[in-house]
Amino acid sequence: MTSLHEQQRPLSGPEKINGNFRGKDILSMDQFDTRSLNLLFDVTRNMREIAVNAEPCDVLKGKQAVLLFYEPSSRTRGSFDAAMKQLGGQTIVIEDPQHFSSVAKGETLEDTIRTFEAYSDLIVLRHDKTGSLQKAADIAESVPLVNAGDGGQGEHPTQGLLDLYTINQHTERLDNLTGVIAGDLLMGRTVKSLIRGLALYPGNRLFLLSPEKIRLPREDFEEFSRRGVELTEIDNTEDIPPDTDFWYWTRVQKERYLDNLEEYEEVKNRFVVNQELLDRYAGEKTILMHPLPRVGEITEEVDKDKRAVYLESQIRNGMYVRMALLSLVLGKI
Amino acid sequence: MTSLHEQQRPLSGPEKINGNFRGKDILSMDQFDTRSLNLLFDVTRNMREIAVNAEPCDVLKGKQAVLLFYEPSSRTRGSFDAAMKQLGGQTIVIEDPQHFSSVAKGETLEDTIRTFEAYSDLIVLRHDKTGSLQKAADIAESVPLVNAGDGGQGEHPTQGLLDLYTINQHTERLDNLTGVIAGDLLMGRTVKSLIRGLALYPGNRLFLLSPEKIRLPREDFEEFSRRGVELTEIDNTEDIPPDTDFWYWTRVQKERYLDNLEEYEEVKNRFVVNQELLDRYAGEKTILMHPLPRVGEITEEVDKDKRAVYLESQIRNGMYVRMALLSLVLGKI
Amino acid sequence: MTSLHEQQRPLSGPEKINGNFRGKDILSMDQFDTRSLNLLFDVTRNMREIAVNAEPCDVLKGKQAVLLFYEPSSRTRGSFDAAMKQLGGQTIVIEDPQHFSSVAKGETLEDTIRTFEAYSDLIVLRHDKTGSLQKAADIAESVPLVNAGDGGQGEHPTQGLLDLYTINQHTERLDNLTGVIAGDLLMGRTVKSLIRGLALYPGNRLFLLSPEKIRLPREDFEEFSRRGVELTEIDNTEDIPPDTDFWYWTRVQKERYLDNLEEYEEVKNRFVVNQELLDRYAGEKTILMHPLPRVGEITEEVDKDKRAVYLESQIRNGMYVRMALLSLVLGKI
Repeated sequence: MTSLHEQQRPLSGPEKINGNFRGKDILSMDQFDTRSLNLLFDVTRNMREIAVNAEPCDVLKGKQAVLLFYEPSSRTRGSFDAAMKQLGGQTIVIEDPQHFSSVAKGETLEDTIRTFEAYSDLIVLRHDKTGSLQKAADIAESVPLVNAGDGGQGEHPTQGLLDLYTINQHTERLDNLTGVIAGDLLMGRTVKSLIRGLALYPGNRLFLLSPEKIRLPREDFEEFSRRGVELTEIDNTEDIPPDTDFWYWTRVQKERYLDNLEEYEEVKNRFVVNQELLDRYAGEKTILMHPLPRVGEITEEVDKDKRAVYLESQIRNGMYVRMALLSLVLGKI
Repeated sequence: MTSLHEQQRPLSGPEKINGNFRGKDILSMDQFDTRSLNLLFDVTRNMREIAVNAEPCDVLKGKQAVLLFYEPSSRTRGSFDAAMKQLGGQTIVIEDPQHFSSVAKGETLEDTIRTFEAYSDLIVLRHDKTGSLQKAADIAESVPLVNAGDGGQGEHPTQGLLDLYTINQHTERLDNLTGVIAGDLLMGRTVKSLIRGLALYPGNRLFLLSPEKIRLPREDFEEFSRRGVELTEIDNTEDIPPDTDFWYWTRVQKERYLDNLEEYEEVKNRFVVNQELLDRYAGEKTILMHPLPRVGEITEEVDKDKRAVYLESQIRNGMYVRMALLSLVLGKI
Repeated sequence: MTSLHEQQRPLSGPEKINGNFRGKDILSMDQFDTRSLNLLFDVTRNMREIAVNAEPCDVLKGKQAVLLFYEPSSRTRGSFDAAMKQLGGQTIVIEDPQHFSSVAKGETLEDTIRTFEAYSDLIVLRHDKTGSLQKAADIAESVPLVNAGDGGQGEHPTQGLLDLYTINQHTERLDNLTGVIAGDLLMGRTVKSLIRGLALYPGNRLFLLSPEKIRLPREDFEEFSRRGVELTEIDNTEDIPPDTDFWYWTRVQKERYLDNLEEYEEVKNRFVVNQELLDRYAGEKTILMHPLPRVGEITEEVDKDKRAVYLESQIRNGMYVRMALLSLVLGKI
């Protein structure tokens, strides 16, 4: 019996979408091209209309999604849950199964996936062991699988999609952008998904701001550069170029420094966005983003700045993008 | 960043309802006047008809409530959950987030509320720290917030509302009543909500029965008296006046005596309702109420007495009152 | 106050169905006769059509089931949850209440049941203390109760029903069958429900394969024999008769050997189904079943064998049978 403790290389990569979402597993940003993103974002705009106008909608009536979360996240689970229900669909929520479920008796991920594909039209899976998403997708032959987080080193594509949509919503393009991406670039799943997406468009220039210990892995730096994004590493807030299109801030995760909490304390405060920093380096139109949760890396005084989108449009876009994605994958749009 | 560990005074009190529920936060009994209660109870009676006749109802179709419970209560959560669903609405249930969620990573209540208001039309919140409800309501600008319990010293208004409705249902009035309220009057949230509601009507006389250590705080005693309820404190079951309109019994909470369990054991047994006590002091029409859960303060032999409503109409009324409140606050009635 | 720690003999046995499911508690396979099984399986076949053709179905619109699981099982809970929702119904899910709920404050099962019957049309209950299901059914006077597992020594009738349906689906009969039932026959709930069901039909011959320590209790052996099933005990895989109609494999539960883990290790490997064993003793048409979860007693190489139904039809039948049962008990079919 294959053990989840071994990191799995995908048996086959996930299928390219090529403008046709129906029935496809959504595991990685690498499945998307600009055409597929445009289609997704068009549908997302329609979904935003539906939600904002509070129109009852039955696009997904009769459809059920299992939300299977091995790693906690009420934010992401709640977003998918709300997205299904906004469209008249239903959800079966299974959280933390390793401590509460037959999984506690030693069942494999494979058997669990085979069980839940029998009850649903789609599975949304979040797992703590990278590689689990591809493994689960290979097993679930009869329903599509959507990645809600694939362990510490894996992807979180729907976050990347909502982040791209948010940038597009405010700047009206996805090419020739300048941006600052800060925080945990070594482990940060959302950062990698975002850069992958921006690499699809020409002319994007990103400034990567992080402590050296948690900078972007060299392998990723080279791959993303090869794909056409211009990456510049900076290690000091004073080196932030003025008036970029966006700032994307992320949390330095304490979980990553458990063996050296002193270092964590020193590091987490070096890259804090406060009103002063924002006023000094951001332009009038610069948008400030954060995937949340935040734990001090953006001070609360900044929340009311009109450039701060992380508690406003960015969160709402998460639900709209997921509404669009679920509808497309279930073949209802 | 404001800490939840400091007790917050409300920045502004919650708005009076004045007969218009639409879009209002429901945090305190003090928002209600007799006109608003009458309107709520009229709608409640309609809801009771709908539920009893098992008529499918889509009044809240397309509407979603997030049920955010930081403190456990399957009874209250289940009641709100059932209420939304009876009316064709949907719920996103988030329980014990501090141990299972991004909240475990240090996120503030404020950011959590901002996230969930993006996914829903209404938030039902139960929290263990008094003051959290007002703080959350101040943050949630785009959706109404309903208080399902505001820490040990805060209110639990929907329980007060269902208790008033129950008394009204059986006595056909809310003025000139006599009642015995027993148990934990120091900390009991439900007791204070009930007295607040009764204080809106003339001529109500209440006999407060509790151990001295957990009697009603002097501050509340004076405030309620000022508002027009006549309060008499008794400390012995033998002093219960005969033939009152209702008895409202509550649990002496072990959680309040953790530093002195001996005293808890002594106290909890002094005010037990058994068939003998009921027969001796209650009248034919006296109703016996309890917000549940009970742990011995009413013996099971009493359950079948026709005056015992705590397992019958009182529980059902909880769902009907919440159905009415949600419909009114969401502007669908 | 009655304690759940005492094992309760049923006050009255559950009512025979006699072809009329409406409003009945479903607690035991003993409530079923062949006529009731035929009716249930006819409806199950219709439900299978509905699910396979993905037809939106509103048979249970407006109906709510409380899924009350004191013992963890995301598989069984998910199956009931999906079944209600496939038919347009709703669920209120309460899991592990003793650690998260007012039950943590000492509330009895009785009061909990009285509360949830007020919010629902039906309760699905799984409990860890045998006898709790009958006790709960006696309390819940206004709604039917469905047994999802009654402690270690009690029944799990819906598993028995789906197992019978699966055998019937593949062999097109339920009489004159031969089968091998292996694993934990002492404690295995599913095994006893299956044998009870097969005992209703003439000519069934079962070979019971288990370590002596966990063989079928003598009391059950004699009762089932008396009812007409021919039982033969074998203790070695080499004694498996060739070409039986089905093999029903179960897990030897580590939880049962906690005082002697060495013995557990020795025992659990003696009765493993691998491709070699299957090819040696099973016929072309023999179906291989397992209630799941499995932890090594069937090797993964067997999964793709066309005789292996435990990850295919057996799981799906669980949802179809529960859709049928819920519809019949709620009087909608």
